[in-house]
Amino acid sequence: MGNTFGKYFRISTWGESHGGGIGVVVDGCPSNIPLDAAADIQPALDRRKPGQSDISTPRKETDTATIVSGTYEGKTLGTPIAITVPNSDHRPQAYSEMKDKYRPSHADYTYQTKYGIRNHEGGGRSSARETIGRVAAGAIAAKALSAQSKIEVRAYVERIHDIAMPDFGTGEAPALPFPSLESVEQTAVRCPDPALAEQMIARIKEARSQGDSVGGVIVCRVKGLPVGLGEPVFDRLEADLGKAMLSLPATKGFEVGSGFAGTLLKGSEHNDVFENRDGQIRTRSNRSGGVQGGISNGEELYFRVGFKPTATILQSQETVDKDGTETELMGRGRHDPCVVPRAVPIVEAMTWLVLMDNWMAQQARSHQPEA
Amino acid sequence: MGNTFGKYFRISTWGESHGGGIGVVVDGCPSNIPLDAAADIQPALDRRKPGQSDISTPRKETDTATIVSGTYEGKTLGTPIAITVPNSDHRPQAYSEMKDKYRPSHADYTYQTKYGIRNHEGGGRSSARETIGRVAAGAIAAKALSAQSKIEVRAYVERIHDIAMPDFGTGEAPALPFPSLESVEQTAVRCPDPALAEQMIARIKEARSQGDSVGGVIVCRVKGLPVGLGEPVFDRLEADLGKAMLSLPATKGFEVGSGFAGTLLKGSEHNDVFENRDGQIRTRSNRSGGVQGGISNGEELYFRVGFKPTATILQSQETVDKDGTETELMGRGRHDPCVVPRAVPIVEAMTWLVLMDNWMAQQARSHQPEA
Amino acid sequence: MGNTFGKYFRISTWGESHGGGIGVVVDGCPSNIPLDAAADIQPALDRRKPGQSDISTPRKETDTATIVSGTYEGKTLGTPIAITVPNSDHRPQAYSEMKDKYRPSHADYTYQTKYGIRNHEGGGRSSARETIGRVAAGAIAAKALSAQSKIEVRAYVERIHDIAMPDFGTGEAPALPFPSLESVEQTAVRCPDPALAEQMIARIKEARSQGDSVGGVIVCRVKGLPVGLGEPVFDRLEADLGKAMLSLPATKGFEVGSGFAGTLLKGSEHNDVFENRDGQIRTRSNRSGGVQGGISNGEELYFRVGFKPTATILQSQETVDKDGTETELMGRGRHDPCVVPRAVPIVEAMTWLVLMDNWMAQQARSHQPEA
Amino acid sequence: MGNTFGKYFRISTWGESHGGGIGVVVDGCPSNIPLDAAADIQPALDRRKPGQSDISTPRKETDTATIVSGTYEGKTLGTPIAITVPNSDHRPQAYSEMKDKYRPSHADYTYQTKYGIRNHEGGGRSSARETIGRVAAGAIAAKALSAQSKIEVRAYVERIHDIAMPDFGTGEAPALPFPSLESVEQTAVRCPDPALAEQMIARIKEARSQGDSVGGVIVCRVKGLPVGLGEPVFDRLEADLGKAMLSLPATKGFEVGSGFAGTLLKGSEHNDVFENRDGQIRTRSNRSGGVQGGISNGEELYFRVGFKPTATILQSQETVDKDGTETELMGRGRHDPCVVPRAVPIVEAMTWLVLMDNWMAQQARSHQPEA
Repeated sequence: MGNTFGKYFRISTWGESHGGGIGVVVDGCPSNIPLDAAADIQPALDRRKPGQSDISTPRKETDTATIVSGTYEGKTLGTPIAITVPNSDHRPQAYSEMKDKYRPSHADYTYQTKYGIRNHEGGGRSSARETIGRVAAGAIAAKALSAQSKIEVRAYVERIHDIAMPDFGTGEAPALPFPSLESVEQTAVRCPDPALAEQMIARIKEARSQGDSVGGVIVCRVKGLPVGLGEPVFDRLEADLGKAMLSLPATKGFEVGSGFAGTLLKGSEHNDVFENRDGQIRTRSNRSGGVQGGISNGEELYFRVGFKPTATILQSQETVDKDGTETELMGRGRHDPCVVPRAVPIVEAMTWLVLMDNWMAQQARSHQPEA
Repeated sequence: MGNTFGKYFRISTWGESHGGGIGVVVDGCPSNIPLDAAADIQPALDRRKPGQSDISTPRKETDTATIVSGTYEGKTLGTPIAITVPNSDHRPQAYSEMKDKYRPSHADYTYQTKYGIRNHEGGGRSSARETIGRVAAGAIAAKALSAQSKIEVRAYVERIHDIAMPDFGTGEAPALPFPSLESVEQTAVRCPDPALAEQMIARIKEARSQGDSVGGVIVCRVKGLPVGLGEPVFDRLEADLGKAMLSLPATKGFEVGSGFAGTLLKGSEHNDVFENRDGQIRTRSNRSGGVQGGISNGEELYFRVGFKPTATILQSQETVDKDGTETELMGRGRHDPCVVPRAVPIVEAMTWLVLMDNWMAQQARSHQPEA
Repeated sequence: MGNTFGKYFRISTWGESHGGGIGVVVDGCPSNIPLDAAADIQPALDRRKPGQSDISTPRKETDTATIVSGTYEGKTLGTPIAITVPNSDHRPQAYSEMKDKYRPSHADYTYQTKYGIRNHEGGGRSSARETIGRVAAGAIAAKALSAQSKIEVRAYVERIHDIAMPDFGTGEAPALPFPSLESVEQTAVRCPDPALAEQMIARIKEARSQGDSVGGVIVCRVKGLPVGLGEPVFDRLEADLGKAMLSLPATKGFEVGSGFAGTLLKGSEHNDVFENRDGQIRTRSNRSGGVQGGISNGEELYFRVGFKPTATILQSQETVDKDGTETELMGRGRHDPCVVPRAVPIVEAMTWLVLMDNWMAQQARSHQPEA
Repeated sequence: MGNTFGKYFRISTWGESHGGGIGVVVDGCPSNIPLDAAADIQPALDRRKPGQSDISTPRKETDTATIVSGTYEGKTLGTPIAITVPNSDHRPQAYSEMKDKYRPSHADYTYQTKYGIRNHEGGGRSSARETIGRVAAGAIAAKALSAQSKIEVRAYVERIHDIAMPDFGTGEAPALPFPSLESVEQTAVRCPDPALAEQMIARIKEARSQGDSVGGVIVCRVKGLPVGLGEPVFDRLEADLGKAMLSLPATKGFEVGSGFAGTLLKGSEHNDVFENRDGQIRTRSNRSGGVQGGISNGEELYFRVGFKPTATILQSQETVDKDGTETELMGRGRHDPCVVPRAVPIVEAMTWLVLMDNWMAQQARSHQPEA
């Protein structure tokens, strides 16, 4: 239980960080969508994989995706699309100490207690490696939804530790124009402001040099959404997005539109008045974040996700072993001092999955009298 | 679609704010649980209903719950429990202006566009009145889960506008001891700090006198949770809770544990080291918020929910009508200048629903060899 | 659990035979469908209700449906449609003997053991009265699907005890032309062959005069289905229909197309060869029953449902009480000596629900590039 | 959509008959269950695979299962169990004629029309090869449920063409004592009556020699079921089983207990009276088939599944091509003249899946007060 996401465009992920591999099965994808592993899925996985830059873990994983079923001659069949990514670069001995000792703020203790067993190597199912399946499935959702709409999704790093872009914390819609993918990818930290990006990178390197780690905030923006996506009341669009983001490792918070900053405004300051702009009903401001009553309103959708600092640090920490004996654990291994830049494509993938699922929900109910 | 919540303890709500009433069907409730509408459900509804105090709307609704099915001689049958609450105190004429004009930051425009039709009276399905079904169902979940565990759930107002309790924004677990229900209920604003509560009430009254509104933050705390609740990876406990909270009207943000403040800490500052406390594995600090890897770790679970200021304000606002013609709308009617105090029992109800659902998921899989 | 049916057009039923009433909540219905309780739902309920003729129970129930939510000014809102039907004509004293004694081939013993409690009056949730919610929801599905298609659903009694129409048991598609509703309704037994209907009625009356009961078979036929409904592999159209029918009280068997008789044919006798009929791809015979590979093929869909003889008989039967003590039970009360005629509208309702659900599944995935 | 089965013990299958392979992901399996591919899964696959005997297809497939995730050191982790089986023995050229021509009573035409594309090689997803994932998952369900109960499942061939065991068609519970696995496996046709088995085998060989095919009936029996499994009203145990069986390729009918034969009995002949047998509440006869009101009653559960004759025959048949042009198709390839014997382990697998799912549903709701 808990390894399936989506109701209409439904994905089921599997795999531990060490073992036979990682994979995903996508059910519900429309047929006749051109889909090629190398062209459509691999680029997203490459953005997620470790070892991309000097601020991420030096761990090398090729993370090569294979489409095992569900396509024929380069097009989707409408049948389940199975994708596998083999594991590689194992160093199980690197984890021997973790067999018995619980790493602070990791999931070792809770997995062991919940299931009475765990694969301690690399965190098993709780590893960020699990997100490979999400990213692969998200790439398929992006392909399928792009065939039907003009929706664009762009996430980027808005804050690392306390170095933040000026849009952050204002309660207003981002002033920064919707950035291009290139502008995001131009720096290793995936912040489209080059000067700030430099500071962020320095901050991450500083943390690493101290054997420490930092967290931050990703903003994700969606343009081109039609009015009407989102299924009140329990499946409001922001509720689906919030669940998607809070299911990612290391996330501690989610806010849509004005978010927590918006709770400091008065109603007269916060409301988005409607206007007629060139014959279209639009809102003058966009503190709602593109969603009203759980349904997209045609404005840009934007939300933020907060990531805690990486729990693995290269310092000695107090802890206990599985028998409850107090001990110490010295962090080793090759870990990211900051997961936030690599989480950018994961946030985008989950967003595509939510949007495609809601798109299909809307289509299912659409009233189309037969001619 | 979108009106069902939960996988094992599953509720389906129905009803518009004006019409035949509001209700909920609860499926999956264990049998033989004593359940009485007046004793077990009505108190929760009474905490939610309007007209409770001089800081809420003067609208009077009795909101009397009737159990129509699923119990026999005061106990649950294991069959669906249907609960209905009739609507009352209609003043449909109060809404005639809203038939054609879209209220800013309300769901009028998005519902109309999504469905091509809406019940404009009182917001229809997007009204906060919809939460009655959730509160009734949450009371049943609380009863059923309390029969099997020592779990306690307590939500309270931690911030109104910028008047905040000291626990807010620290990134640390609440220093305030787990408050009693009485201490929360002693003031109309449901903040357990009487002095701050007085300031909060004054702030709300001030906003109302200006025809304006304010928002705020609710914190919800859970004690007595066993280790092991939560279904990774997509149904992490905090993901389920986040979805539950973000499905509530007027919510803009959710954070668990250290939340967004925690993203400003370094790993060495944020990690919760394990210790052996009286023979039990515990964490020394609790920035994780009682959840690690999506699974409860036995510490206190806590999370925060941000509510925007009420969209309905008693001021003239620019807007458009359904034809896109720009016009003005003068807010009328009897509305809360701040929804946050009344949302406290709703947050608790959703929390009980999530916990009961996860409790059942865990029980379903528990390995119990036959003797 | 178990009280919700459908994935896209989803219904949740509630209610015991004696208690506050019976109802259903329909989620996922398209908006803007004209819907009126008296015109659209009541006729179906009237076909199901007891006391219609001299071969059904003399029990009188008005079974009047009220739409409590989900419509506005006579049209569906796209929000949950709640329908309630109050219980009436209670004679709880008629059931006092059943409080402790288990009726043979009823659900008294299994409900009591599963749940540790039961409402023994009239069978509680296991009563055929539970099907009211299905029939009401089926009427909505019929209305919504008829707005989008030319699909027609017609069920009728094909066999009572051993009096069978000639189509039964041949393994071939029905030779009888698709009958009109009028031809089915012209006799109380709902068999469109008047001469056979007379014999069937006589057989039912004979059983009743002996304090006994009989069973039979309903055939259900669907015309106007497009090619392409059904979701392989687990949700094949016939699998969904089979589940729907086998969830009805008193059903013991389901067969589609040639059914069990078809298993006596050889492949060369059973196969439906394709031909080009007036420019359309059609099959010459229809032993497949309108479904191939779980997907509708554009031919008439037909299937059969077997109903056992009513378990309640007006004879003394051996049984045990709840303590396991052997005793006798004398059947009393006002029961149908044959449930099959009244089950005809229920079979139709479940068919509409399955078809609408599959229609929406197909629409959800349909690839509609944006202009 | 349609490729996931089960609510608590949930499987998702993927794969076409020709392509990268076949697989299944099992979510919800309890942890700490010993599980070994060779010992626990392979035997079930070997019973299903082609080429086992001289009455099945000479096609050779090794069908070797690999557990890719979800176990650690030979035990289940509680995380998703992914199993893959590579495809082999491809002869795609054998299918070139089917690229454009629709095989009668196959799914070629419906798949092509539904999805606008299909993998025509070997039937793609509609191939019986798809059931490999079901059998592998069923073996896991069997292992997990056997760790908690004394349930036994045994299916066998009761009829081939018109050669039937005497239990068939009586409306009574099988008189044959619950057969051992060995007695079923002793003949290639999987009928535990050796003399009848010989006749059945001769009938199959005769059909093959004519280039023809035959169908038949499998009975499946379950002993050791506790009272109380099954979730009324829509998820009655027989409804879940019916859906499971009717989702299998080539099935045309399902009946539980007395089945269609039971509809020929009167109530006084059909009812199962209760008695006290050695202190236990039991029924004297078992025409109910072990289920009353959709809930297991502690008696032996039994049901029958009808399979049509194999659609592929080695004769020339009329058909059309994808353009609707009438043509002929000569059956070629290596096919089973009768699928029924190989379907026996598949029927068992689906039964285990249904039982495990219902077992978990019952456990989820069980009321276990904390000490």
